[in-house]
Amino acid sequence: MIDVQERKPKHAFKLTRVGVIGIKKLVSVERGGKTTILAPIIDAFVDLPSTKKGSHMSRNLEAINEIIDNSVRKPVKGIENLCACIAKNLLDKHTYANYAEVGMKSDYFMERKLPSGNKTMENYEIIGKAAVKRNKEVKKSVGVKVVGMAACPCAAETVRSILKSKKSGITHNQRNITSLMIEVPEKYDVEAHDLIKIVESSFSSPTYETLKRNDEARIVINAHKNPKFVEDIVREVLSKVLEKYKKLPGDVLVTVRSESEESIHKHNAFAERVTTLGELRE
Amino acid sequence: MIDVQERKPKHAFKLTRVGVIGIKKLVSVERGGKTTILAPIIDAFVDLPSTKKGSHMSRNLEAINEIIDNSVRKPVKGIENLCACIAKNLLDKHTYANYAEVGMKSDYFMERKLPSGNKTMENYEIIGKAAVKRNKEVKKSVGVKVVGMAACPCAAETVRSILKSKKSGITHNQRNITSLMIEVPEKYDVEAHDLIKIVESSFSSPTYETLKRNDEARIVINAHKNPKFVEDIVREVLSKVLEKYKKLPGDVLVTVRSESEESIHKHNAFAERVTTLGELRE
Amino acid sequence: MIDVQERKPKHAFKLTRVGVIGIKKLVSVERGGKTTILAPIIDAFVDLPSTKKGSHMSRNLEAINEIIDNSVRKPVKGIENLCACIAKNLLDKHTYANYAEVGMKSDYFMERKLPSGNKTMENYEIIGKAAVKRNKEVKKSVGVKVVGMAACPCAAETVRSILKSKKSGITHNQRNITSLMIEVPEKYDVEAHDLIKIVESSFSSPTYETLKRNDEARIVINAHKNPKFVEDIVREVLSKVLEKYKKLPGDVLVTVRSESEESIHKHNAFAERVTTLGELRE
Amino acid sequence: MIDVQERKPKHAFKLTRVGVIGIKKLVSVERGGKTTILAPIIDAFVDLPSTKKGSHMSRNLEAINEIIDNSVRKPVKGIENLCACIAKNLLDKHTYANYAEVGMKSDYFMERKLPSGNKTMENYEIIGKAAVKRNKEVKKSVGVKVVGMAACPCAAETVRSILKSKKSGITHNQRNITSLMIEVPEKYDVEAHDLIKIVESSFSSPTYETLKRNDEARIVINAHKNPKFVEDIVREVLSKVLEKYKKLPGDVLVTVRSESEESIHKHNAFAERVTTLGELRE
Repeated sequence: MIDVQERKPKHAFKLTRVGVIGIKKLVSVERGGKTTILAPIIDAFVDLPSTKKGSHMSRNLEAINEIIDNSVRKPVKGIENLCACIAKNLLDKHTYANYAEVGMKSDYFMERKLPSGNKTMENYEIIGKAAVKRNKEVKKSVGVKVVGMAACPCAAETVRSILKSKKSGITHNQRNITSLMIEVPEKYDVEAHDLIKIVESSFSSPTYETLKRNDEARIVINAHKNPKFVEDIVREVLSKVLEKYKKLPGDVLVTVRSESEESIHKHNAFAERVTTLGELRE
Repeated sequence: MIDVQERKPKHAFKLTRVGVIGIKKLVSVERGGKTTILAPIIDAFVDLPSTKKGSHMSRNLEAINEIIDNSVRKPVKGIENLCACIAKNLLDKHTYANYAEVGMKSDYFMERKLPSGNKTMENYEIIGKAAVKRNKEVKKSVGVKVVGMAACPCAAETVRSILKSKKSGITHNQRNITSLMIEVPEKYDVEAHDLIKIVESSFSSPTYETLKRNDEARIVINAHKNPKFVEDIVREVLSKVLEKYKKLPGDVLVTVRSESEESIHKHNAFAERVTTLGELRE
Repeated sequence: MIDVQERKPKHAFKLTRVGVIGIKKLVSVERGGKTTILAPIIDAFVDLPSTKKGSHMSRNLEAINEIIDNSVRKPVKGIENLCACIAKNLLDKHTYANYAEVGMKSDYFMERKLPSGNKTMENYEIIGKAAVKRNKEVKKSVGVKVVGMAACPCAAETVRSILKSKKSGITHNQRNITSLMIEVPEKYDVEAHDLIKIVESSFSSPTYETLKRNDEARIVINAHKNPKFVEDIVREVLSKVLEKYKKLPGDVLVTVRSESEESIHKHNAFAERVTTLGELRE
Repeated sequence: MIDVQERKPKHAFKLTRVGVIGIKKLVSVERGGKTTILAPIIDAFVDLPSTKKGSHMSRNLEAINEIIDNSVRKPVKGIENLCACIAKNLLDKHTYANYAEVGMKSDYFMERKLPSGNKTMENYEIIGKAAVKRNKEVKKSVGVKVVGMAACPCAAETVRSILKSKKSGITHNQRNITSLMIEVPEKYDVEAHDLIKIVESSFSSPTYETLKRNDEARIVINAHKNPKFVEDIVREVLSKVLEKYKKLPGDVLVTVRSESEESIHKHNAFAERVTTLGELRE
């Protein structure tokens, strides 16, 4: 019996991406010198030629499981490298495909220091992606999503003017969510820890899980000394990326997005830059 | 052929609620003296005796559609009264049922005034519910979910102490979402507009869609003069409910929930009171 | 006092998109010859030159409100044309910007016919977008998201083989969500109703809100005569788009995505084609 | 300086629950004889007397962190026991409180067997809760949320009648999500693994991550031999709970909910029973 998938489709169009979405798996990766267990959500796709009715999607699961099983014995560095291994495995299994793409995102925990010097474990999202064309190099993306605090520079000034008080630092501030994503050629490595640090230091202030009164006040004071629009946060991140990744090639893709859950509005404020390192260096 | 639903079930347990979830419909209701078109999401359930395998769920849709069709010709007052009509219709259609329950929630728009006096249309969620036992009175619930601003009273004080500045009003503030739900006997009417006003005036400040510089600064200044914990917001709402609904009976159920999307934390702060008007009056 | 937004930023990077996300508004549009009231969620952005610290985001709200207010008096055809008007208004208000982008999505209701001939109002999502560079033509996107049913062609065949029954049509089937998005130059009009019909007729079967026994069985039988992979659904949509839009130019962008909430898996199956009409015509 | 929280509130109402929502932590628990690392989302509340303005929410974080730190050295059995320890710790830290409540939910992975005998790791959600009044016993809740497959018994029959084929098993089937929650006194232990097995064996068929053709067909055939309404699934779970937990006391609370993402509708079907073991035993 010929697989249904192998037959000619009624309408002979090729497809850009065919695959599975929302797989949950336990994976073991090496990050910052330590082996960590993560529970990412995984998507995995290949393209499909116009001559085949269907993609063998169970092979996507097999490709994922094989790589994850191997990584238990020999940890892979970061989920973006896991994605790269799975993407290459997808091309091995789907011989008719010319393109494979794998994405993962996962909660991630990292130790940080409060203003008082006390230690705290903070929660982040890390994102890995890999895309590969047959016989070409893999393109890997490493990304992070970080929650921080943004205090508004504009209201601060208008308030000063209305209150006729040069010293007043009163302004609205809010939860901000900023993501940074860097796409590098296969041989380069970008450490997600560094990306977290870049983003977290670009807010008006980082935020923390447990805050006793003094740390809380210090954070509030620091944030108010350091008011930032979403525009400022994105630019600050870009500036630090430029400084940190001097050795990465110019065609490296950089995406920064910042969204503030405005405390004075029911809607959010947003800023974004999609660019290459080369463009940033000009 | 006997309906499959009418057969004896393998395990003769009665069921508490059986029905449909997530129906989207256009409805026309009268609210604040005007007819408005809303697009609520609707759930509708009846109970099921231990002797019947299944509930005829298509009747739930018929019950909903009949009432909504009638309401086009003769508008019903608020979605909670629509819910009550549908709940009674469910008991007519499901003769074996002893209980019916219907819930709706919908976006809602209401005109508000900025500090400058300019008018603005603001967005809210309104919630209606009705539950009825056969041969008993319907219990209707009217609720609202309102977005506002909460400035923290605790950080304000610690900052003053650290900065040794009695005048500093600096503190963290954030988006807050507060809901108020009141359950009344069928014959009483509670106006959702009043609930929105009660909640909105209980924040550190209301929030608005369009703010030019001066309105923005006024709101920030007002919020900082009026710092509130989630606990304060819930109690303020309770106090206004007590004041406003002197004529409602003591067994009227009141639920108030306030959640702040903390700007200094990655998690939220939460306060809740579930009570009766009678208890509040003690 | 110079606006804070007008100052020089610390890091002189231009930004790709700056604006507001998640505005809820009531709008009035003409669609299929009738005026309808919708409650879309709206996003609106402009770019920002490297010389300006911030974008005047309140102008985005003013741009949105002006266009929506005008449309009450003179209805605009579809939300994509509303988006186009707002995008052009954004460029008028943000004189420093060279690019504006507006997106809306909304619940939408359309009358359909059951196999029995009975009428039913079904629920869809419609999507509008507009992007414009200064002194260039607007690019408008019209899209729909439709829920339907997909029955699996592969399991159908394996089941036949295992049961040694040529007649068995037994297979797994599931809820499928398919979206179609078409980007056209400003002067062209694509009717969202047509897109809904194209997508809905490409499933194994459409789905309906209220189904009495016979209509339910007819739908199930039809779906099983018409088993489809997500790949088949995407290709069927592409084929109908090609047939329907013979007069649209070759550079028109077409995106089709189909996702099945697999009944045999905890994850979803997905297929996508991103292409131009020109490419499809080859 | 007196803590702001310690002051008298403006409106002297007590509050039912005050605390933190959405904390993400890595925890280590013993389940099914093995130590597992989970990344639950945690909520933690206490009540608040009418005499205190605010609850010291940072203590909730300290209470959580202390228990989680201890559990690294000495694993606790299941997240419900972690919840119980944290709830008791909350009462120690909030001396003014008379009630504490803690909830956790987490992804969970468990090995299962395919029809072919091959092994697979499947994904579930486990839920733990604990509520305690001062000087009373803790009430613990253990729950699971399981994804499976439901084939409709009603359409199966109507199709047979229309096709005049007694053998046709054709019907619609869909993804179903069923949860089971059991509340027990502190000294009893309910194993989440058992709850997963009870729910998973109550669907028309379990679902699996990786399915080659023969396993896929077997699952489809099994599901069609075993058609079930959401009502049937809830009752099947109740029946197995009754059988399994003969030794638990009659006041043990049992909640079962089943929701089918109907493939023939855009909305979901739902059934629920909230009861006690005692009531079920009648």
